[in-house]
Amino acid sequence: MEVEYKDIKVIGFDADDTLWVNETYFRDAELAFANLLSCYETVNKIDQELFRKEMENLPLYGYGVKGFVLSMVEMALEISNNNVPNTTMQSILEIGKDMLNKPVELLEGVQEVLHTLSNDFRLILVTKGDLLDQERKLDKSGLSDYFHHIEVLSDKQEANYSKLLNHLDIRPSEFLMIGNSLKSDILPLVNIKAKAIHVPFHTTWLHEQVSESQAKHKKYRTVNNLLEILPLLEKNKKRETVKNEL
Amino acid sequence: MEVEYKDIKVIGFDADDTLWVNETYFRDAELAFANLLSCYETVNKIDQELFRKEMENLPLYGYGVKGFVLSMVEMALEISNNNVPNTTMQSILEIGKDMLNKPVELLEGVQEVLHTLSNDFRLILVTKGDLLDQERKLDKSGLSDYFHHIEVLSDKQEANYSKLLNHLDIRPSEFLMIGNSLKSDILPLVNIKAKAIHVPFHTTWLHEQVSESQAKHKKYRTVNNLLEILPLLEKNKKRETVKNEL
Repeated sequence: MEVEYKDIKVIGFDADDTLWVNETYFRDAELAFANLLSCYETVNKIDQELFRKEMENLPLYGYGVKGFVLSMVEMALEISNNNVPNTTMQSILEIGKDMLNKPVELLEGVQEVLHTLSNDFRLILVTKGDLLDQERKLDKSGLSDYFHHIEVLSDKQEANYSKLLNHLDIRPSEFLMIGNSLKSDILPLVNIKAKAIHVPFHTTWLHEQVSESQAKHKKYRTVNNLLEILPLLEKNKKRETVKNEL
Repeated sequence: MEVEYKDIKVIGFDADDTLWVNETYFRDAELAFANLLSCYETVNKIDQELFRKEMENLPLYGYGVKGFVLSMVEMALEISNNNVPNTTMQSILEIGKDMLNKPVELLEGVQEVLHTLSNDFRLILVTKGDLLDQERKLDKSGLSDYFHHIEVLSDKQEANYSKLLNHLDIRPSEFLMIGNSLKSDILPLVNIKAKAIHVPFHTTWLHEQVSESQAKHKKYRTVNNLLEILPLLEKNKKRETVKNEL
């Protein structure tokens, strides 16, 4: 293990787009929604307006599919000037139900990484969104047994993480977070002096995007693939073994 | 403290309708919904159909306001044979937002009971529903500081409680749950050999109702009011004090 990770006791994994595909399903849903309403506006405009509506409702609805569907319903009324047919409303509800029923598609290397790391670290799942939906996805993923603890947070800001570490009874320097969102999984951790490794996913929700300047000079590492984490966390183990053999 | 509670270390409190008013707001919302659609069906029939829809969607949406609103939207389409006006849809969304924005109204004795018990026990909040909504209500309630831990469960069945006790690292005999729902707060606890005190609220959601036979011969206590719990948990303290003085 490289020096920077030598104190790590607990590793937190983000779930959506770190362990399994998620954002892709939201992109598909947004496109389906825009197509349903394309007689009222351009697809591009509908997309922008839906995002605006989601942000407007976020403090009230929070993250997750159900709030997203409620925002689609509201936006359909608005963008059609209250002329949207009931059958379109039905289709919107169907988009939401389909999202909740999607199979869980694991990303590359997830099984191997969790299996290997679970031998040496306490692994926890740290996610946000609908509680039931996240539990269901974990269940479908078949990964439950690797995790000592599942934490579904209403948001992933510094205060949420500090509370979590407090609850886990560990110091920030003993915690490593791994995730795809700079905004939610990386920067808040770096700011409270915990460790973080960024594993980008090919699509990032606009709300999760951060400017280059926000991330500049922050101390975290980026890898291309979850599997690249293993050598980073194994070196020290080998060194310790050598030491023990002397 | 009476003999049956002598081992208690942690007390779990249900939140909705145990610490603060909740079901009343759902009843009001159901009535408002039925009135909105009363040109299609009788209020009684609409009420029944909405409940049926909620139960149908429960495995997918889970508990809480957002799933309830999505079920209202779906039921409005169904009961009107896709003839419901867009303005009614707007009103349904408004009902949901109003519910999420409701002030928190504490029930009688809550502050006193939590204040007193927090001196001698670790108190935790054990609730189900939307994570963000429950956190927001706790925040508005001003009761956060009394609780060591907040657990929002996706459901309150025996397995959920067993997992929680495991996580808290205590034995069932050391846990007392206090709540208004026989189905969610009392019977699962009694079944896993933990303790439970039932504090009925004047209104119970049909889904939370249990038949007399289900609760018969189960070992739990019912009190009329949260304040009645205090003497049950204080006797032993006095006895201990006397012993220490001898």
